[in-house]
Amino acid sequence: MSTLSSWINIPENSDFSIHNLPYGIFSTTDTAPRAGVAIGEHIVDLAPLAEKGWLKVDASLLRQATLNDFISLGKAVTNEARTTLQKLLSDGDSPLKAHPEYLIAQADATMHLPVAVGDYTDFYSSIEHATNVGKMFRDPANALLPNWRHLPVGYHGRASSIIPSGVDIVRPKGQVMPKGADQPVYKASGRVDFELEMGFIIGKSNPLGQSISTQEAEDYIFGMVLFNDWSARDIQKWEYVPLGPFLGKSFASSISPWIVPLEALDPFRVKGPKQEPAVLPYLTYEGERNYNIQLEVAIQPKDQEEQVVSRSNFQYMYWNMTQQLAHHTVNGCNVRVGDMMASGTISGKDENSYGSMLEIAWAGSKPVSMNDGSTRVFINDYDTVIMRGHAAKDGVRVGFGEVRSMVLPAN
Amino acid sequence: MSTLSSWINIPENSDFSIHNLPYGIFSTTDTAPRAGVAIGEHIVDLAPLAEKGWLKVDASLLRQATLNDFISLGKAVTNEARTTLQKLLSDGDSPLKAHPEYLIAQADATMHLPVAVGDYTDFYSSIEHATNVGKMFRDPANALLPNWRHLPVGYHGRASSIIPSGVDIVRPKGQVMPKGADQPVYKASGRVDFELEMGFIIGKSNPLGQSISTQEAEDYIFGMVLFNDWSARDIQKWEYVPLGPFLGKSFASSISPWIVPLEALDPFRVKGPKQEPAVLPYLTYEGERNYNIQLEVAIQPKDQEEQVVSRSNFQYMYWNMTQQLAHHTVNGCNVRVGDMMASGTISGKDENSYGSMLEIAWAGSKPVSMNDGSTRVFINDYDTVIMRGHAAKDGVRVGFGEVRSMVLPAN
Repeated sequence: MSTLSSWINIPENSDFSIHNLPYGIFSTTDTAPRAGVAIGEHIVDLAPLAEKGWLKVDASLLRQATLNDFISLGKAVTNEARTTLQKLLSDGDSPLKAHPEYLIAQADATMHLPVAVGDYTDFYSSIEHATNVGKMFRDPANALLPNWRHLPVGYHGRASSIIPSGVDIVRPKGQVMPKGADQPVYKASGRVDFELEMGFIIGKSNPLGQSISTQEAEDYIFGMVLFNDWSARDIQKWEYVPLGPFLGKSFASSISPWIVPLEALDPFRVKGPKQEPAVLPYLTYEGERNYNIQLEVAIQPKDQEEQVVSRSNFQYMYWNMTQQLAHHTVNGCNVRVGDMMASGTISGKDENSYGSMLEIAWAGSKPVSMNDGSTRVFINDYDTVIMRGHAAKDGVRVGFGEVRSMVLPAN
Repeated sequence: MSTLSSWINIPENSDFSIHNLPYGIFSTTDTAPRAGVAIGEHIVDLAPLAEKGWLKVDASLLRQATLNDFISLGKAVTNEARTTLQKLLSDGDSPLKAHPEYLIAQADATMHLPVAVGDYTDFYSSIEHATNVGKMFRDPANALLPNWRHLPVGYHGRASSIIPSGVDIVRPKGQVMPKGADQPVYKASGRVDFELEMGFIIGKSNPLGQSISTQEAEDYIFGMVLFNDWSARDIQKWEYVPLGPFLGKSFASSISPWIVPLEALDPFRVKGPKQEPAVLPYLTYEGERNYNIQLEVAIQPKDQEEQVVSRSNFQYMYWNMTQQLAHHTVNGCNVRVGDMMASGTISGKDENSYGSMLEIAWAGSKPVSMNDGSTRVFINDYDTVIMRGHAAKDGVRVGFGEVRSMVLPAN
């Protein structure tokens, strides 16, 4: 692929190369939340560029506190904005050079949720994760339930508690059934866990009653983020039959603040795993619909260095995003711009690539040693969990930055 | 209780008495959707009343296409508006009498969704319904799962596909596993069913990380609607393990368009059923938190008269709304103005009071005879399902009108 270079100083190995240009919502001490694009260690303030006429977008849409209306303009417009920005940031005679005030240091900005999320759906699309969970809690010989290879299992999650990187979470309280007890107790969860996931954001709405095919699906996907699907395993275990996870998940889900456009990930497409048995026709697809995105999770105990506990890859997904979206809408369900859909925990075959503490410490039986001499089976108070992801090929790097959140003690 | 009377002609047995005054969003052929209050066969157009200074509310909030911002003003304001409206509609010398143009005939109006729903949660709080389903699909001797009497089981539903009364639904397609088959098939659902539920609408937001107690809960509940939780039983059965209902529900949920304020239901409070075993302290409550609301479901085959197939009552609920909301937020989950929470299917002990065709026709084994000689085990194409509900006591009636929707053939 051809590589562009920018006249802005971009550190080597920056996630935010000129090939990336992810969208986010930022504010500074004395300015309101508005749209920006990350480049190196800076943010391009988009509204002034539209006011100058450089971007062919109504500037008022870029001064809003969410990207929903901008995204709703459609890929023809947002991709043209992307190409224009690449020119403005690479051309030697770019008019942007004369306006350093349009480039804000990321260190001086606060990042917000990039979109208002209408509905949030969580899938369960890693075969290694579903198999690990099935082995632990059901039948090791029949770890996958009968429907798993026939459809991308998913469920509705809580949209209100999706929060951006940097916001601390409070350890949830709730009902749990202690082992061997015959009455549940009310207590702070003792099994707070992360789930390493990626989420995609819907960029185009469909009317209720009409489906989206796998072929059409990418036109409906604006871009992707890192997604930490916080889970309280003890609460979840007691509550989840027969209607699925509820309070074990709804206390918080953390996302990285920059939405990487699907177009920026195009060079990193790879084939997905072979699906056996063959899927029904509405779930078939053509081409390479998985992406080679390297992922890692680190835990940083209070006042300690962080320590990587998992290295995984988005390409391990059994079900891809076009299949997820086709399945989600096959019954006529409508999706709306800003809706978020998460992958489910992304685990690889190797135990160093498992995407949750539940799997890494195998339900508490294999504690993880930390550099400070402590051990972890789940997440402790004041631990910070950090997830990172990037794709790299032929000298081009496109990354997601990070999603970072500290767990505070229960109220 | 004291009964007021209005100078407006209100038909006997109208759901929309002066003791009700439910809020909705309406439009007419040449006017945009805006806030109104139902009275008899009319709608009070609220914005002009605010512009006259009669209602102490910013009129622009009443010209919006959803009630969210009005409801967000809080109960102190919305209850004062309610009292003012009662005076304007009952006083012999009301200034409203001189403005018949502020009263629109319901027959001339189209009703819309009253709120933008952020998140939608469905509970499963009728012990008779949960027992019936458990008997049919699990173990007749242990129909209730171990957690059922300890917490109000709930799950997240799809907000985008909540639609108002009068909007037809399309029979969903999807994956089902035919009996005895070893491969699923893709087809139109053969088991489309209604679920008779009531929903409540959140009127006050709580910050993430803070719980709402049962004592505080009613301050967070703005009002109630009728709720038809459409279900495709065959799709649901195949997909729902282990993460709960998804496409078997997300094709549509229909609501009645008028939100009856909780205050209008105050005279109809009743005690709830005794809860055994005793619930954990955070789920205890004081006072009468159930409501005596008579409910019915009718099916109207194409070009035929409607026929009532169920008569139930909201007071049968095992878990009340204050318990549902306290449980929902016990983990710190935040709720937002406009969020909707539904009761789960409301069945009574008697088989004439079951709230779904699944139970009425006992999974297909007891077909229901219709007046035209046909039978029903589930809902046929071109059937219209109508749900109605009202409370009545001492000559005062407060009702919900109806939620009515026809099932169209699959695309």
